[in-house]
Amino acid sequence: MEKTEQNQEKNYNQQTQSQEWSEKTNDILSKVRQKTPLIQCITNYVSMDLAANTLLAVGASPAMLHALEEIPDFTPQIDALYINVGTLSSTVLQAMKVAAELAVDLGKPWIFDPVAAGCSGFRLRACLDLLLLKPTVVRGNGSEIIALSRASLGDTKGADSVHESMDAIEAAKSLAQATGAIVAVTGAVDIVTDGKQVIGANNGVQMMQKITATGCSVTALIAAFVAVDPTHPIEAAAAALSVFGIAGELGMKDAKGPASLRVNLIDSLHGLDQVSILQHAKITPLS
Amino acid sequence: MEKTEQNQEKNYNQQTQSQEWSEKTNDILSKVRQKTPLIQCITNYVSMDLAANTLLAVGASPAMLHALEEIPDFTPQIDALYINVGTLSSTVLQAMKVAAELAVDLGKPWIFDPVAAGCSGFRLRACLDLLLLKPTVVRGNGSEIIALSRASLGDTKGADSVHESMDAIEAAKSLAQATGAIVAVTGAVDIVTDGKQVIGANNGVQMMQKITATGCSVTALIAAFVAVDPTHPIEAAAAALSVFGIAGELGMKDAKGPASLRVNLIDSLHGLDQVSILQHAKITPLS
Amino acid sequence: MEKTEQNQEKNYNQQTQSQEWSEKTNDILSKVRQKTPLIQCITNYVSMDLAANTLLAVGASPAMLHALEEIPDFTPQIDALYINVGTLSSTVLQAMKVAAELAVDLGKPWIFDPVAAGCSGFRLRACLDLLLLKPTVVRGNGSEIIALSRASLGDTKGADSVHESMDAIEAAKSLAQATGAIVAVTGAVDIVTDGKQVIGANNGVQMMQKITATGCSVTALIAAFVAVDPTHPIEAAAAALSVFGIAGELGMKDAKGPASLRVNLIDSLHGLDQVSILQHAKITPLS
Repeated sequence: MEKTEQNQEKNYNQQTQSQEWSEKTNDILSKVRQKTPLIQCITNYVSMDLAANTLLAVGASPAMLHALEEIPDFTPQIDALYINVGTLSSTVLQAMKVAAELAVDLGKPWIFDPVAAGCSGFRLRACLDLLLLKPTVVRGNGSEIIALSRASLGDTKGADSVHESMDAIEAAKSLAQATGAIVAVTGAVDIVTDGKQVIGANNGVQMMQKITATGCSVTALIAAFVAVDPTHPIEAAAAALSVFGIAGELGMKDAKGPASLRVNLIDSLHGLDQVSILQHAKITPLS
Repeated sequence: MEKTEQNQEKNYNQQTQSQEWSEKTNDILSKVRQKTPLIQCITNYVSMDLAANTLLAVGASPAMLHALEEIPDFTPQIDALYINVGTLSSTVLQAMKVAAELAVDLGKPWIFDPVAAGCSGFRLRACLDLLLLKPTVVRGNGSEIIALSRASLGDTKGADSVHESMDAIEAAKSLAQATGAIVAVTGAVDIVTDGKQVIGANNGVQMMQKITATGCSVTALIAAFVAVDPTHPIEAAAAALSVFGIAGELGMKDAKGPASLRVNLIDSLHGLDQVSILQHAKITPLS
Repeated sequence: MEKTEQNQEKNYNQQTQSQEWSEKTNDILSKVRQKTPLIQCITNYVSMDLAANTLLAVGASPAMLHALEEIPDFTPQIDALYINVGTLSSTVLQAMKVAAELAVDLGKPWIFDPVAAGCSGFRLRACLDLLLLKPTVVRGNGSEIIALSRASLGDTKGADSVHESMDAIEAAKSLAQATGAIVAVTGAVDIVTDGKQVIGANNGVQMMQKITATGCSVTALIAAFVAVDPTHPIEAAAAALSVFGIAGELGMKDAKGPASLRVNLIDSLHGLDQVSILQHAKITPLS
């Protein structure tokens, strides 16, 4: 009997917590719509269109601006900085570093998407350099976070030299502890961690992975959410992941493939209301 | 009685003028479809896809080509040049200047979109340098045109130093007088001016502002319209603004959000016929 | 009587051959879906989004990566390299050359899209330099292939100096013989040749030409098809052209214009099954 009661209480607590997270998610999205935060994006060429439309759909104001000469004048005006190394070059890397340093100096959040972090030595070093500039949130897929976590722990010899069972959640926790950033890992289930607490966000549909730049775009969305709630980046990141996932779930209903899903995803994001969020958000603390 | 008759005559004149403008608009679009003008675009990375598809939808031929080495060979072949400073860099700025100078030397129209003109000193100076190269048409939103107008009048101290009541129409007229360009300002109502005459174009829907690069794309459309009617840039600019707005109005009918509106906008632009133009175009001389 | 029998046999042979080609096409697409080949794309900014989504729709894995510093680490990991000179610059040209050389050294196929090959001396020379690096397949429209074919035969004086009746098929054969590449020409009917054999692929709809980057995207698709069948590039190229065309035909059914066709095209590509391929593929040896 006691065990059943404990279970019931546990279930009840989990439901209460989940409901609180859904309400938080709705609150942060409302704030984005009210405050229309200005998000500077130094991002890859593939994702610019979808990332800008994602930000516009939730009421944020995207600015794709990456000239070194403009950063001292422009970055002080922004609410958050989004950096993505997708189509990296040495020129844009220099601009990323200058902008990230300035953002930190000005107390503005900056969000980092380490696309394909481990695919070359040049890119891995670039990502490690950027991590030293104290991003507020890092969002990657499992391989990217594992590559960064290993490298940030001093291991740059590649995947073979590290114990294979080290999974993405542990890698994310290590990376968060080593860098002080909130780390988000997206995949079948999304998680967000500050190195201790782990939050799961369980929204989205698999076909979103067949649309280029959805990963980049959800990181841009995290930037908009953190911009309006900079003192709670773990909550903002989990909320953004859930909101993007819900838009995908709603968009999937009439989708005939990845291209119509992409259209529906942005339409749903734009039209997302409180009822849908409270009904669909699946955020739960995992530890 | 006399006043009523005057009003009736005024209304009658306005209706006649509006109808003439609608017919002009239809004529210029027909010319674009017949002549398939070649438009060289030196534009930002965010807008390339939508701007190219906008030009293709009306039958123009877009060429996104910005290498300094190619301009001497290629620019002589074009019908109009479109320059947009959205994702500015010093490298592309150099190409813009060389292409604009060559276009002017060859007597070809060039159209200028000063995206976010006032957001940095570097960008403002770049825009002022480009203005000196005599664009045929400048198209911006209110803030951009006000920033340029003030700066072109010698005021580079920023917004606070100028009388706040100076609105976008007055700024557009000043900028047109100072530069010799036709100036178009887009917003709730679009206007076009040569510094004296002001033409209003009252088409479009608000949700178009939630789609990235619609501003850039309508400027590309102006380039195509001016390309086929280079001696009447004020008419061509007003017609392009109206056509793009009508496509948005028609596209809005089945739109479920900004992404489906974007699809419908291009589809409508492609299918736009004389009946729709004559029925929907709302162009009226304001002064 | 004899002639009728011969005709019947010829028709029968053609039908058998066409059916074999349809089955081959289906087989290669299945292989792409199974093997998810990694395609490095050094391509123009306009096409990045559609090319990436085209590759994802058939199950391939696109990587838009063009930094010179990354090529030595990354190119050895890929299954095929795709190079497209659309928005050429001297910086990216250098990366293209290094990547193509490395691909050839490693025995990996590389596929070349010489966008607007003849539009400037700089671009024509760049294309000729790239042709010397032995692409596996070259895909262009008629004008591009004619420009390259003439130039590769030593004629760089321009179009007037060569006999006007030299058409795209003959140009393609000459270019294939001169370079050792498979050459594909797309237009009203697509053809593929190794310099002797000519294969016709007769799928697609005209409105695809009103969507920017469809040419670039079908070349990316050829790269994915060659990646999984590198010893039969002529078959892989013809199959990719046919598959893209079939997706366009199926997508045209509910299309209201070029933008909805673009959405439907990618959706159809993603959903394409054996029945549709066997029913719609129109590949026939022309000589």
